[in-house]
Amino acid sequence: MLGKIALEEAFALPRFEEKTRCWASLFSTDAEQHVREITDIDTLRIEYADKHGVGYQILSYTAPGVQDIWDPEEAHALAVEINDYIAERVSKAPDRLGAFATLSMHDPTRAASELRRCVETYDFKGALINDTQRAGPDGDDLIFYDNPSWDVFWQTCTDLDVPLYLHPRNPTGTIYDKLWADRKWLIGPPLSFAQGVSLHVLGMVTNGVFDRHPRLQMILGHLGEHIPFDMWRINHWFEDRKKVLGLGETCKRTIREYFAENLWITTSGHFSTTTLNFCMAEVGADRVLFSIDYPFEKFEDGCEWFDGAELNEGDRVKIGRENGKKLFKLGEYKDSSA
Amino acid sequence: MLGKIALEEAFALPRFEEKTRCWASLFSTDAEQHVREITDIDTLRIEYADKHGVGYQILSYTAPGVQDIWDPEEAHALAVEINDYIAERVSKAPDRLGAFATLSMHDPTRAASELRRCVETYDFKGALINDTQRAGPDGDDLIFYDNPSWDVFWQTCTDLDVPLYLHPRNPTGTIYDKLWADRKWLIGPPLSFAQGVSLHVLGMVTNGVFDRHPRLQMILGHLGEHIPFDMWRINHWFEDRKKVLGLGETCKRTIREYFAENLWITTSGHFSTTTLNFCMAEVGADRVLFSIDYPFEKFEDGCEWFDGAELNEGDRVKIGRENGKKLFKLGEYKDSSA
Amino acid sequence: MLGKIALEEAFALPRFEEKTRCWASLFSTDAEQHVREITDIDTLRIEYADKHGVGYQILSYTAPGVQDIWDPEEAHALAVEINDYIAERVSKAPDRLGAFATLSMHDPTRAASELRRCVETYDFKGALINDTQRAGPDGDDLIFYDNPSWDVFWQTCTDLDVPLYLHPRNPTGTIYDKLWADRKWLIGPPLSFAQGVSLHVLGMVTNGVFDRHPRLQMILGHLGEHIPFDMWRINHWFEDRKKVLGLGETCKRTIREYFAENLWITTSGHFSTTTLNFCMAEVGADRVLFSIDYPFEKFEDGCEWFDGAELNEGDRVKIGRENGKKLFKLGEYKDSSA
Amino acid sequence: MLGKIALEEAFALPRFEEKTRCWASLFSTDAEQHVREITDIDTLRIEYADKHGVGYQILSYTAPGVQDIWDPEEAHALAVEINDYIAERVSKAPDRLGAFATLSMHDPTRAASELRRCVETYDFKGALINDTQRAGPDGDDLIFYDNPSWDVFWQTCTDLDVPLYLHPRNPTGTIYDKLWADRKWLIGPPLSFAQGVSLHVLGMVTNGVFDRHPRLQMILGHLGEHIPFDMWRINHWFEDRKKVLGLGETCKRTIREYFAENLWITTSGHFSTTTLNFCMAEVGADRVLFSIDYPFEKFEDGCEWFDGAELNEGDRVKIGRENGKKLFKLGEYKDSSA
Repeated sequence: MLGKIALEEAFALPRFEEKTRCWASLFSTDAEQHVREITDIDTLRIEYADKHGVGYQILSYTAPGVQDIWDPEEAHALAVEINDYIAERVSKAPDRLGAFATLSMHDPTRAASELRRCVETYDFKGALINDTQRAGPDGDDLIFYDNPSWDVFWQTCTDLDVPLYLHPRNPTGTIYDKLWADRKWLIGPPLSFAQGVSLHVLGMVTNGVFDRHPRLQMILGHLGEHIPFDMWRINHWFEDRKKVLGLGETCKRTIREYFAENLWITTSGHFSTTTLNFCMAEVGADRVLFSIDYPFEKFEDGCEWFDGAELNEGDRVKIGRENGKKLFKLGEYKDSSA
Repeated sequence: MLGKIALEEAFALPRFEEKTRCWASLFSTDAEQHVREITDIDTLRIEYADKHGVGYQILSYTAPGVQDIWDPEEAHALAVEINDYIAERVSKAPDRLGAFATLSMHDPTRAASELRRCVETYDFKGALINDTQRAGPDGDDLIFYDNPSWDVFWQTCTDLDVPLYLHPRNPTGTIYDKLWADRKWLIGPPLSFAQGVSLHVLGMVTNGVFDRHPRLQMILGHLGEHIPFDMWRINHWFEDRKKVLGLGETCKRTIREYFAENLWITTSGHFSTTTLNFCMAEVGADRVLFSIDYPFEKFEDGCEWFDGAELNEGDRVKIGRENGKKLFKLGEYKDSSA
Repeated sequence: MLGKIALEEAFALPRFEEKTRCWASLFSTDAEQHVREITDIDTLRIEYADKHGVGYQILSYTAPGVQDIWDPEEAHALAVEINDYIAERVSKAPDRLGAFATLSMHDPTRAASELRRCVETYDFKGALINDTQRAGPDGDDLIFYDNPSWDVFWQTCTDLDVPLYLHPRNPTGTIYDKLWADRKWLIGPPLSFAQGVSLHVLGMVTNGVFDRHPRLQMILGHLGEHIPFDMWRINHWFEDRKKVLGLGETCKRTIREYFAENLWITTSGHFSTTTLNFCMAEVGADRVLFSIDYPFEKFEDGCEWFDGAELNEGDRVKIGRENGKKLFKLGEYKDSSA
Repeated sequence: MLGKIALEEAFALPRFEEKTRCWASLFSTDAEQHVREITDIDTLRIEYADKHGVGYQILSYTAPGVQDIWDPEEAHALAVEINDYIAERVSKAPDRLGAFATLSMHDPTRAASELRRCVETYDFKGALINDTQRAGPDGDDLIFYDNPSWDVFWQTCTDLDVPLYLHPRNPTGTIYDKLWADRKWLIGPPLSFAQGVSLHVLGMVTNGVFDRHPRLQMILGHLGEHIPFDMWRINHWFEDRKKVLGLGETCKRTIREYFAENLWITTSGHFSTTTLNFCMAEVGADRVLFSIDYPFEKFEDGCEWFDGAELNEGDRVKIGRENGKKLFKLGEYKDSSA
């Protein structure tokens, strides 16, 4: 289909090219191509989009990004630099490209303030955060955003009426040493990504973030980071734990209700029709959004799969474009790729 | 259906009744009933089985069990005690009850030796291990069984031709502090269980355990601890990582092949027909086994769901009984519940 | 769920009680109860609805009804009698009951005129037709509505902006003798119903009715009378036949597009979650409507199945109520059963 | 995958080339190619098979074939001619080609006798029958095989232990005039085929053929000719009709049991993974067989779909080859295409 909207699409700063290359060598089968693709903003990316029917992309700074920087000042400065950079770049093709804010998540008020700046000044479509923020003197602390001290930040998200994409990052520090060092092949898409994000977002659910901010909208990639698989099991135990053990104090709705009212899932990096159909059964086609995860995945793989997947056309159009138009209020969005 | 076989069914030692009660208060809505049910071997359990059409159960010591004991001698002694105890108890109803060995996993050779004793002396049906073994001076170390030092143990499993059930246990030590302490509602069935076991078994896959022991059979509960959900994504990245990055040195087959040849999943604690159908699509009905997870789940819930689930009868009988008969060589098994 | 809307719900005229009883003996396990239930309008029916969370029902005259009468005048007179009768009866509980018009389908103009009267005078929600109209001197002719002579009727449907429910009736005459007489157990729900309606509606598709009346809305019961099963196969052959053989002259869109834009399916008499999930995959949850098929099916069976089916809540509410509210413009509909 | 077995693969007699061409013009987008393909036995057919991984094909005479001939002697003579012809041709490539017997179905004893000859003399793998046999002075009568007079034939099938493939043919005579003449685009794969075969086979079920011949094996193409779609609904009404109305006298098992014990479905002409997954849920992967429906469908379309479909490998291999090996006792079958 034409006019697809994609929203987990990464870029990197040109000045970090060497770092990007080094990083790419850890997972990419062609590091040089990866460097070219992730550093490019509007040439390769729009060529691919034209070729594969993507009308609009929301770009975000590549993981782990600022969440990997444990010095708060350095983290904040980099976030601002990234936001200014991408704002300028996407402004040249506003009908094809948008951006998510990059935020230092050391301090809720400062994160909220930078988000506000990006949305109000640059018309950013929300923010994308790479899981927990590394912190502490040696970067081994982890800041989660699921306790009340972060309410000021979540309040700003709902005030601005923009969603937050909770994206993974790699395990670090003690967690890395204890669990992942000896099974490095599982780091990233095969396992660690989903483990990190599912813990974080379900922490938000059980610690009451979505009850205190019932209009908050959060996006999960990779068809929901395993959570749809266990919808029945999670629901079963949550409801049981509410009966006598106190979970109901912070978590008043059912897990299915949070998925119906606060959460969205994207197809990024998970191009399986069987799994997509399962997810549609568990969360409904109205909460699923197309995405690619470029350049970690290819436009070709994501788009040819999606365009050819055995879906009814109504659901294909919803997932491919209409749900995104609603979530991001792209009312005037015209499909420039058509 | 009658004559179902169930294999993730827990018991506790009577002498730990107080500890069991204390533990139960953390998750159970009726701690006293839980204590009665988990301590009972052949009264309540067989009443329930008769009522709900379970013909044969394989019992295992409740988690975290011996995997929670970081002193090797203490761990080994408890394992032996448990095995002797349950061997004697199930021998009174051999047509209705079997047992999995409990093993201290501090030392591969000793674990292998105790497994051999249990299988050869007591006709145990395999072993059930609760994820990593706690170890080290303060119990904060974790022993995984996915490196070559454990080959002697896995070799014994295949020599004896018995499967190993990799069951979860709760997070402990540093991992608990860093990730789970502030989101305690996610500990256990809602999330931590699947995170622990999926890491462990995929570590075995990528570190070559199933390539070095191609006949090894391992069972995962809870419909596969999230892994079937990501079959496409795991396969995609594993195959990519084999191309230039070296994963193929230890992991020669595809993830789908390990699931077809070495892994089994059970329905324990995940009574969802939608998810079961999805798993059957991903791994095939021939690799799925019925289980309940009693007494953490009720016979009634597991059996009424399974008996009434919208399944074709061929698959229901396979999952409910025939696959188990083959895996555990219960050729003469006659359905005493019929 | 509360406030469900149901729309394949039959009634009979009290003066035909004896005929109803005779008819019931052919299929019902309790003919007397069937007579009571189908003759009742607002007592039993509303008791059941209250008990099982049905807020609004659209009633229709039971099959084969007027489509079984081959004398045009007699058929028309009976249709008018039925419409006047049910209009008066449902007007007493307008927040709980609505009606579909009963129409003699001997003459397109007269059918259109009676439909207009029912909609404009009585606020009927559309019409329900029992497949082909028997006609000819001995009732052995069959009138299909898929040729251009019926355009005046379909135009009236779209002018009035009301849907038509194409309901089955039993095979009659030569067709009965040739195909069904010797396999009587297949008459009705097991097979003949779906064969009749699927032929008729696909005849409408291929003969261009929906191309000449692109806003026409038609409802099929029983999860679509087998058509969703063959969506791929029908589409494959239709598109092939358009290439050189001429089907494209009358049938310009794909079968999937007709299902997305003109057709709706209901759950009447087909309480299978597996099949419902399959239909949702093929036609999308936005085109599925809850229904029971009372009193041929029980409120209890239809409602308990639907309320307890493994569906996400968004889709359950759509299918159970919201899609119906949109289709029938029940904007002010308040759930009196809540 | 390599070594697939395909079993709804049609041929025509060379001497009917002109008739074949004429027939092809009614449905084929390239009539000449169709004539070449259907007349060829072992050149094009084996080239395609080599290219697309088909190891073994069971050939059958194209529909409507002998079932279209209402003169019994002419029908029988043609059947014998066809059987002798194809026996000689497939004997040249016995590791790649087998055949189903063609039978005149005017007389049960004669049909049984010719089947026996084909199986015992030529090692045919069973028979393929094109629905009802035309009969009577003008060909307007229809012989169904679901009454006791056919028991001698079904007994022979089970004595010989070979399956019967019940294939469709086009509607003829009065049925054609009444139902299909004005909606010709629905004749064949889009609708009439499934309507004919589903009536016939469900007639066999309800009239007791499978109860009188419990070992009889029958194959249905096109993923079961719509029946799996209505498994729940058929079962519901059959079981209801057994309660007081007498269906249980001839039909003692449930519809699900006949599908588990007597019926098989093939993928011929229905290359939809969504529908295949649904069928696997309803009848189980052990009763599904790969087939193409060549030359009405292309090897390329059927094989590329099947090889690339999102299936677990265990089920793919079962459906693609292993189930067929068991049903046809091809124990020594070695995959010559591998």
